[in-house]
Amino acid sequence: MKANGQPTRTIRPLSNGHVEIIDQTLLPHRLQWCTLSTLADACEAISVMRVRGAPLIGATAAYGMALAMRVDASDAGLDHAGTALVATRPTAVNLRWAVERMQSVLLPLSAQQRAAAAWTEAACICDEDVARNAALAQHGLVLFQKLAKPGQPLRVMTHCNAGWLATVDWGTALAPVYAAQAAGLPLFVWASETRPRNQGASLPAWELREQGIDHAVIADNAAGLLMRRGEVDVVIVGADRVANNGDVANKIGTYLKALASHDNGLPFYVAVPGPTIDWRISDGAHIPIEERDAGEVTHILGGVEDTLHTVRLTPQGCAAANPAFDITPARLVSGIITERGVVVPGRLADLYPDAA
Amino acid sequence: MKANGQPTRTIRPLSNGHVEIIDQTLLPHRLQWCTLSTLADACEAISVMRVRGAPLIGATAAYGMALAMRVDASDAGLDHAGTALVATRPTAVNLRWAVERMQSVLLPLSAQQRAAAAWTEAACICDEDVARNAALAQHGLVLFQKLAKPGQPLRVMTHCNAGWLATVDWGTALAPVYAAQAAGLPLFVWASETRPRNQGASLPAWELREQGIDHAVIADNAAGLLMRRGEVDVVIVGADRVANNGDVANKIGTYLKALASHDNGLPFYVAVPGPTIDWRISDGAHIPIEERDAGEVTHILGGVEDTLHTVRLTPQGCAAANPAFDITPARLVSGIITERGVVVPGRLADLYPDAA
Repeated sequence: MKANGQPTRTIRPLSNGHVEIIDQTLLPHRLQWCTLSTLADACEAISVMRVRGAPLIGATAAYGMALAMRVDASDAGLDHAGTALVATRPTAVNLRWAVERMQSVLLPLSAQQRAAAAWTEAACICDEDVARNAALAQHGLVLFQKLAKPGQPLRVMTHCNAGWLATVDWGTALAPVYAAQAAGLPLFVWASETRPRNQGASLPAWELREQGIDHAVIADNAAGLLMRRGEVDVVIVGADRVANNGDVANKIGTYLKALASHDNGLPFYVAVPGPTIDWRISDGAHIPIEERDAGEVTHILGGVEDTLHTVRLTPQGCAAANPAFDITPARLVSGIITERGVVVPGRLADLYPDAA
Repeated sequence: MKANGQPTRTIRPLSNGHVEIIDQTLLPHRLQWCTLSTLADACEAISVMRVRGAPLIGATAAYGMALAMRVDASDAGLDHAGTALVATRPTAVNLRWAVERMQSVLLPLSAQQRAAAAWTEAACICDEDVARNAALAQHGLVLFQKLAKPGQPLRVMTHCNAGWLATVDWGTALAPVYAAQAAGLPLFVWASETRPRNQGASLPAWELREQGIDHAVIADNAAGLLMRRGEVDVVIVGADRVANNGDVANKIGTYLKALASHDNGLPFYVAVPGPTIDWRISDGAHIPIEERDAGEVTHILGGVEDTLHTVRLTPQGCAAANPAFDITPARLVSGIITERGVVVPGRLADLYPDAA
């Protein structure tokens, strides 16, 4: 998709063997690319959320393994790199998926072969992510075409950032939005700001403007009223992990949107590529929920003209709790959109007989 | 309740005939009193939210009428003052209630008598507010005592500011919390930050610290997860208007908390003094919802050490929608706590045979 009018991916291997990412902590105020040269750089970029979104976290972890292999391609080095990356964030399962895939490809090779093979495999993981999201986009588009009413734009509500910035390209929840735009379907997107890190106010809002799609930011609190008023046609979100039974771990606040969708008879869809499904766990109760720093609630970064400032929102020294994800039970999910098609949560395994 | 360790009310008549309020737009960063000398001052204080909370808005409107009577105590002056005040904010019914009460007391008097009578009546409205909230506090305390489990603090979740700063004193939703503290019941309060104006992060957080009650601020998005995890015992909120059937208009996001309470089998109470009940309307569909400026969503005021700064959270020029209230249907409300006792929403009229 486009940044400053130019099509690009969110993560780019460089000819000097380093990797370039967009520093998403600076958006929407500043588009700044940032170079990852070491395993430590990749770990830091994931943990401080310079890269966000389960698929992009997975892709960054793959390149983190590749960077690590140049320094220490021993079995111990492979193990250490995987452990360090998996420890950065606990909820997104794509992180573990990417690390395990890299390890399974690299472990049979000699130490001398690993650096080059890792670089190739990371690139392959990125290409596959793009292909999966493009396929998912088409399945979502069919749904959107069915939901659209003649003569008015389809009003889509989303939560957090599940646009192309959350992936290598296309996005998950916003992938069908981009496919719909390409297909000429009129659209309007409600982007929930997604406190505390305000991903919605910064990333989808920035993406949608760059792509020229009509949208408005809302406080997360406004979702219920807008649904009750009939100003929303469909809710679509991404996920950090989906359990076997279709329970969904996604950014904190997703569960509240699912409840409001259900109470108002609105379709609530979750768009995920296959690697976001964790076949090893039966339900959402087994998904670890990351607790992040209280400072993300008590302070916020914002722009004042061209400079960035962090301001305090609470009394000095105020306690805050900051769980980063919640679990939406499968019973509130109308369907899961994947690269292989759309199913009700309970039939997810039908799409993945090879994995489930 | 206490500000800087000293008991005070939120609105204080001065011996020079002016009125003093806490400028709540500066909390929690700065405790600053602000003088209202004219009707225009009172209107401005209400519309820019220097005073907030339905009961305090009503009290401020009463003093606004009194200030107006000193300048023009004619029938036309009385009418003009009422119209100007009622136009400041559409949702809180206490505003209309206070204006109509002042008009009904003043209209029968001669113009010469009106200024003095208005001053007395405004003081009376304030005293009655304190008495009502103190009574409501005791009814809420009984509920809290029933809900408390031995050996652990009662974990109360609230939304927006319905503490003493929202009233003349005591508060509505937090009044039972203060009564429980006085009765020695251990408590913990989850204060939802309440985007976009962050009343929860600024006002209850500040109040509870001043009163020495254990609490933590959370992003509004976290409410559902905390309930699912069993970290909440009761949810209690105030209201800006309650319809005859028990539908509740309160700060945007209240409906989402009510849905999550219902989904998790938790009691959801609404604490309101009588003047917040609008007997003229049958249900919530008739309550006007204020749409406020998009800038409240796209920008936020915060503190950097001792100074205050407004920062931008979205891309420049980003569209935003900002409905300030939502409607919680009576079916999601466990009970309404008033100065006359606690009832299920459908039996509200039983408590007010004189008004309903």
